[in-house]
Amino acid sequence: MNKQILLKSRPTGMPVVENFTITEVPIPLLKEGELLVKAKYISVDPYMRGRMNEEESYIPPFEIGKPISGGVIAEVTESNHNYFNKGDIVMGNMLWQEQQAVNAERISSLNKDSEQLSYYLGILGMPGLTAYFGLLDIGKPKKGETVVISGAAGAVGMVVGQIARIKGCRVIGIAGSSAKTTYLRDNLQFDEAINYHSANLEKAISKACPNGVDIYFDNVGGEISDTVISHINKSARIIICGQISLYNETKIPVGPRIQSILLKKSALMQGFLVNDYADKFEKGNQDLSNWIKDGKLLYEQTIINGFEKLPEAFIGLFQGKNIGKYLVEVF
Amino acid sequence: MNKQILLKSRPTGMPVVENFTITEVPIPLLKEGELLVKAKYISVDPYMRGRMNEEESYIPPFEIGKPISGGVIAEVTESNHNYFNKGDIVMGNMLWQEQQAVNAERISSLNKDSEQLSYYLGILGMPGLTAYFGLLDIGKPKKGETVVISGAAGAVGMVVGQIARIKGCRVIGIAGSSAKTTYLRDNLQFDEAINYHSANLEKAISKACPNGVDIYFDNVGGEISDTVISHINKSARIIICGQISLYNETKIPVGPRIQSILLKKSALMQGFLVNDYADKFEKGNQDLSNWIKDGKLLYEQTIINGFEKLPEAFIGLFQGKNIGKYLVEVF
Repeated sequence: MNKQILLKSRPTGMPVVENFTITEVPIPLLKEGELLVKAKYISVDPYMRGRMNEEESYIPPFEIGKPISGGVIAEVTESNHNYFNKGDIVMGNMLWQEQQAVNAERISSLNKDSEQLSYYLGILGMPGLTAYFGLLDIGKPKKGETVVISGAAGAVGMVVGQIARIKGCRVIGIAGSSAKTTYLRDNLQFDEAINYHSANLEKAISKACPNGVDIYFDNVGGEISDTVISHINKSARIIICGQISLYNETKIPVGPRIQSILLKKSALMQGFLVNDYADKFEKGNQDLSNWIKDGKLLYEQTIINGFEKLPEAFIGLFQGKNIGKYLVEVF
Repeated sequence: MNKQILLKSRPTGMPVVENFTITEVPIPLLKEGELLVKAKYISVDPYMRGRMNEEESYIPPFEIGKPISGGVIAEVTESNHNYFNKGDIVMGNMLWQEQQAVNAERISSLNKDSEQLSYYLGILGMPGLTAYFGLLDIGKPKKGETVVISGAAGAVGMVVGQIARIKGCRVIGIAGSSAKTTYLRDNLQFDEAINYHSANLEKAISKACPNGVDIYFDNVGGEISDTVISHINKSARIIICGQISLYNETKIPVGPRIQSILLKKSALMQGFLVNDYADKFEKGNQDLSNWIKDGKLLYEQTIINGFEKLPEAFIGLFQGKNIGKYLVEVF
């Protein structure tokens, strides 16, 4: 028998642990072409909140009474496929389940000697690529421009800021605690970091961005974004990567209309999903790996131990508990 | 002596004729390099409302007690410049004044035998080029896509819709009267036209756009835009050309936040000003002229007579009184 986590009920507003159930299921028997894998690292990501609602989005909703699924790194314990052997490390979209059978065609193999296997769920995975394509492809940063990032100490934001610095930009991060802003300034060399809980954001942005904002990489949405957007320059680019401050809203969020600002400033606002860039992932991962090797790109993770902690870790994303990528290590 | 129109006071909300004064000034004496011109056609444009507010925008505000200025076509009555002769027709940004001295360097010459001189303030001028670059450069319409236009019977909107049809798109126009929607359907061959005053816009858009909206060319903003944006497809382009429904608001307009929709749909929203494309105007005017010659592009104007009618015509823009370009003919 092994543990599995199901969606018990759809969250209303902020998710609570009671929206999840832990159950036990038999260890599955393998069919042809399948592998038995044991989860090592399981990812919790803000986008998963959207899948807990009933409504259709760009991916189908999770079903009530069925297991949650997401990014998982696992070890092969039994193989019914030529290409994979016992002991291999694989990654893919899998269930929140300790041991499971997976179709070998739907996962990819990782180098098991990697120093930081978990990076494949972070900087060398979806969050890193999200930062890379959002900033470079939509933002098109130019040397000397000012880049503001909300959710700057998160899995995506901290990569965005460092790439912007590599490109010669002035980088301002907005985050939700002084531990985070200190980390951004001292460890990642952001030019400025603003704690939106303690600062007057309007004044802080004015001070940190004396030449206005050329690029706004938005992970958060809501009032923080209203304030940043009121400071954009002519031809600014606003990259909509996430809106985590709104994911738990139970009514349609309302705010100042921004079209007039986009009009006056000839500004661009673009939403995107990392999978829009699937054909360029190899190039993105290559650049990210090189920057890590060269010491230009640092990465942080918040890892908690224990499969049962998954719901709590997921909820923690919305409470700002993580610096960098939030992960659960299974064993 | 000749007449001039001044901004007497800044409008609060909807402009009224009392915000303007008509006065008389002497006919100016010419300096070297100047021309004396007599206004023939004076343009009223929605963007001018922004210049009546105190706040700085992409162009400086009009000053109280000083004449309004905007697009004017005029005849040269006296020339102190080699290149221009009496009887020439010129166009440029000039004062709302019957006769005035203009610097020859700051105006351009028009072919005085043109059948429709006034077109240079419309389809062959700023509104036509606005339609052309907004739709083609930002919207990038592809054959078979669905294009929705708000303010579709206006000087810009009616050109957008016809270019979209030339590009093989399904075209839906939104306008504010049945005279306008009939005109769009019957004269301009729009696939559908919706009167937002009489229709349930949500239902009408659903019905007119069974495959969703790929391009939304927005002249209007506000609730009309909220409804259209709720119907966008994956990778939609939203072109922010104007927000006429909001120009007379006295408080910051509030509405549903749209970033989450842009995110789910990987959609683009872009504001622009026609002058962003100044280096490509020649190509744009060439294409527009050719389409007119080929009968693929029709154009409508609402012309009222009398210099004194300028304030009334300007106010009429916000009351939906015009079909196509709104102009005042001076004599």
